[in-house]
Amino acid sequence: MRLAILAHEAFPGRAKTAQGLLRYGEHDIVAVIDRATAGDQVSDHLSDVQEAPIVSNIGDTPEIDALVIGIAPIGGGFEETWRSDVTGALSRGCDVWAGLHHFLATDTEFARLASENDCQIWDVRRSPDDLSVSDGVARDLDATVVLTVGTDCSVGKMTTTMELVQAARDRGLDAGFVPTGQTGVMVDGSGIVIDRVVSDFTAGAVEQMLLERKNHDYLFVEGQGSISHPAYSAVTCGILHGSMPDAMILCHEVDKEVVHGYESFPLRPVSETVDLYESLARPVNPCPVVAGALNTSSTDTEDAREHIATYEDAIGVPATDPVRFDPDELVDVIENQ
Amino acid sequence: MRLAILAHEAFPGRAKTAQGLLRYGEHDIVAVIDRATAGDQVSDHLSDVQEAPIVSNIGDTPEIDALVIGIAPIGGGFEETWRSDVTGALSRGCDVWAGLHHFLATDTEFARLASENDCQIWDVRRSPDDLSVSDGVARDLDATVVLTVGTDCSVGKMTTTMELVQAARDRGLDAGFVPTGQTGVMVDGSGIVIDRVVSDFTAGAVEQMLLERKNHDYLFVEGQGSISHPAYSAVTCGILHGSMPDAMILCHEVDKEVVHGYESFPLRPVSETVDLYESLARPVNPCPVVAGALNTSSTDTEDAREHIATYEDAIGVPATDPVRFDPDELVDVIENQ
Repeated sequence: MRLAILAHEAFPGRAKTAQGLLRYGEHDIVAVIDRATAGDQVSDHLSDVQEAPIVSNIGDTPEIDALVIGIAPIGGGFEETWRSDVTGALSRGCDVWAGLHHFLATDTEFARLASENDCQIWDVRRSPDDLSVSDGVARDLDATVVLTVGTDCSVGKMTTTMELVQAARDRGLDAGFVPTGQTGVMVDGSGIVIDRVVSDFTAGAVEQMLLERKNHDYLFVEGQGSISHPAYSAVTCGILHGSMPDAMILCHEVDKEVVHGYESFPLRPVSETVDLYESLARPVNPCPVVAGALNTSSTDTEDAREHIATYEDAIGVPATDPVRFDPDELVDVIENQ
Repeated sequence: MRLAILAHEAFPGRAKTAQGLLRYGEHDIVAVIDRATAGDQVSDHLSDVQEAPIVSNIGDTPEIDALVIGIAPIGGGFEETWRSDVTGALSRGCDVWAGLHHFLATDTEFARLASENDCQIWDVRRSPDDLSVSDGVARDLDATVVLTVGTDCSVGKMTTTMELVQAARDRGLDAGFVPTGQTGVMVDGSGIVIDRVVSDFTAGAVEQMLLERKNHDYLFVEGQGSISHPAYSAVTCGILHGSMPDAMILCHEVDKEVVHGYESFPLRPVSETVDLYESLARPVNPCPVVAGALNTSSTDTEDAREHIATYEDAIGVPATDPVRFDPDELVDVIENQ
């Protein structure tokens, strides 16, 4: 499919979905829509991803099959300044994909335009109707289950998970991907956005996805949020206990000191965060943090190596930046478990 | 209101909602409906609660205003063997209150009968439409926030919370109750059943309830589940981080060794559970476990005192059974914080 990705005033740093689709999706990205960087190319801002022009609105976008809302704002609301791009896409008969808590299909104008122009609104965050509580059986799977966990939101859990899946497959391992967020679900074409399910079914929804993919030798589960997060920790906890991993990889970002969007909450030392994840796993299914993934995109290469060394010392296990350097180091650790 | 409480084959041990309404509700309970113990009186099974006859079906129930589903089965499903009691109540023009995940108002037959007989179905677990993510502000409240936490489900968190509210009010303290489960909401007449909200909004829904009650000097928050529970820990975690308590009380039950309904999961030592709750609170708002509440209902009084002493030694803080003995001991600890 040919996609345009809406990322107004958020590209690239705060447009996780846009980055994920540009880097890992199999779809053809024909434009990014961002009024703040319009006129640039994607390559002016990101390396090692698909190239595409950045335009200011849907009217400047080449022919597409779908418009994707490529931003995941805190709270998941819809910004009214995006409305003309969405109505423009629907009026042209293009589908719209969105991962917001606010379902676009419930908007009267969008629903009418979709109906009139025979196109679809895919609210990726809408959860299946058949979810239930966990049976507590993920620990019985033969697959080696690897979960990415984080010191905060937006530190690289999705990216690390996708890099691991690719690297594992590149070396011939039978690796499955368990997407738990809107970007992962859009890239994979399946999965459940866990932060949208009924709280009681959080672990159960993750367990269900693992059972559906149980014949893989390795299952890489995309983590969400952080266990130390004042707003999102419930989701993190449910994913940990629902997936009952055999190994965790702690994701972190260079120089991150406070919780994103909740800046009055300082992060605890990373070693304490390792202990907290392991302590929380223990009563349900003991599991070590076996490696670290550090997002070093804000530094140069030499500094990045120093930061990684410091991070390794702090968490006591091997670490790398799987985007900048080589995710194979992490796959080695997992294969040798 | 005059209520009958349905608790087939579950009264009293597995009928938490029935017990809560009998012990703490201000409504008049005119019958318990339980085909297994029909013919008995409530006092044959429970002490210090409202007296009522136990009958086998809705046909044997005196005049009522509402039928309450007084069971909270794992998964929250509706048992078809309860159908004739529900249809019987609606046919008589009585309301029906239910705290199940399965909403009775969505059942075609129930909806039709309610409409025909001009009565209401109150699905207590249905959450408000205006929930959102937490702002992370509960720690800024002037009120002293006390949260009950547990080693498992069904160990006495709701009961302990209600005993604390009553005991605090009895000594003249300005104490508010923050209900988070179906029974608490039915007893209080307000509140949000947290295990039913969208996972991302778990902490936010709790925060919203605290803000609505912020003018009390003390807020007693009903905890849910357990942080060590393979299925329900997400709810527990969201309540802890959303309420940002100043003090926690760890609830436990004598001789409990495995997770209820998940018997292949042994409980960890209670001291480890104390550490886990405190470690999880620390990154968001540091908070100690200040006391313990032990459900000793399965033992005689002498043994109960021994069990409490052992429990106190294990958790390192004062403990009691607030139902069997005196909740004032716990209020003392809280007042002296």
